Amino acid sequence: MSDLVLYLGNKNYSSWSFRPWIAMEAAGIAFTDHVIPFDYPAGNPEFKPISPTGRVPVLHHGDVRVWESLAIIEYVAELFPEAGIWPKDRAARAEARSISMEMLSGFRALRGACPMNIRRTPAEIDLPEGVMDDVARIETIWKGLLARSGGPFLFGDFSAADAMYAPVVNRFEIYRLTADETVQGYMARMKAHPAWQKWQAAALAEPWIVPEDEA
Amino acid sequence: MSDLVLYLGNKNYSSWSFRPWIAMEAAGIAFTDHVIPFDYPAGNPEFKPISPTGRVPVLHHGDVRVWESLAIIEYVAELFPEAGIWPKDRAARAEARSISMEMLSGFRALRGACPMNIRRTPAEIDLPEGVMDDVARIETIWKGLLARSGGPFLFGDFSAADAMYAPVVNRFEIYRLTADETVQGYMARMKAHPAWQKWQAAALAEPWIVPEDEA
Repeated sequence: MSDLVLYLGNKNYSSWSFRPWIAMEAAGIAFTDHVIPFDYPAGNPEFKPISPTGRVPVLHHGDVRVWESLAIIEYVAELFPEAGIWPKDRAARAEARSISMEMLSGFRALRGACPMNIRRTPAEIDLPEGVMDDVARIETIWKGLLARSGGPFLFGDFSAADAMYAPVVNRFEIYRLTADETVQGYMARMKAHPAWQKWQAAALAEPWIVPEDEA
Repeated sequence: MSDLVLYLGNKNYSSWSFRPWIAMEAAGIAFTDHVIPFDYPAGNPEFKPISPTGRVPVLHHGDVRVWESLAIIEYVAELFPEAGIWPKDRAARAEARSISMEMLSGFRALRGACPMNIRRTPAEIDLPEGVMDDVARIETIWKGLLARSGGPFLFGDFSAADAMYAPVVNRFEIYRLTADETVQGYMARMKAHPAWQKWQAAALAEPWIVPEDEA
């Protein structure tokens, strides 16, 4: 059993959990995961030792607690410098962090209107203002990077940047947000990744339905 | 002249610009800054070569463009590993990144209702729901870290974590959001830092008034 334990929300819905999980899994890092369903009461005193913020994801490593998806990724990238979590080239790494933090801080319209939902059958929904601006910006990011790297992933090999955008791949698919072939090719490669397949199988096996995430 | 050029919004108002600026200035890194006032049209084609997102802050280093406040800080921390931008201890660094990303992704109520405004005379305002929850969480973070490190800053020496919370120090002061003495002591030390003083002097010299940031 690994001394790294990643506490997650439901695999079907928790986009912030998916990000560090797929970054660690794709990099071949040994860890244990532990799902805390969304209806777990965050204010419960039992939850306090698990997460300083009352939220997931949170990584435990001995006495160390690391929260926020991208801080977890930075921590394991430091622990396993040979795992290739960030691109090796300094300028590429800077760009990977820039787009990862753009994801962390932004795309609020898309995130609000289009929740991740692994088991959902693809179908269009009514989209509030701003969603298609977010989609356009993400398409610009992905196409620019794929053109430069040649793929298969944003910076060539799978990296933390792909992990940070993984939930967006699901959103683009299930709400039919893109018709761009280059973008769809990237999405197909992401969904074929063994780490994605493993997460998807676990998500499909979950019994919980969260009505507010069923858009 | 340095080969690092940081493009910023107005120093009086731009909280996201203040963060990388004070991190770099406090660390003694040589750079040139360049203010682009808020009323500069972001859609202007002239702005495209400056910033891939149409927003500031953005750091130029030769051909490299780095955007998002914390990605800029990570980039200069890599360029100048001896500058002490992050805490030296790995667990402390992980916690510094966790709270920095909590700032980057959260505290929306506080950020929305209480814009940074260096020149404002302190006075209370009506606060929408959620602001005091944000204040309470930030007080918990600061007091916990100061108790552990002994100060003067969150992790002892000034670090990127202080930089990420610097605009909150201004907000707490100008909207009178805290009566806690430990918190006020930390705020006083932040405001006395030479880098803060330099930013403040530049902000006070700016001629621009942005009505929507005058709460």
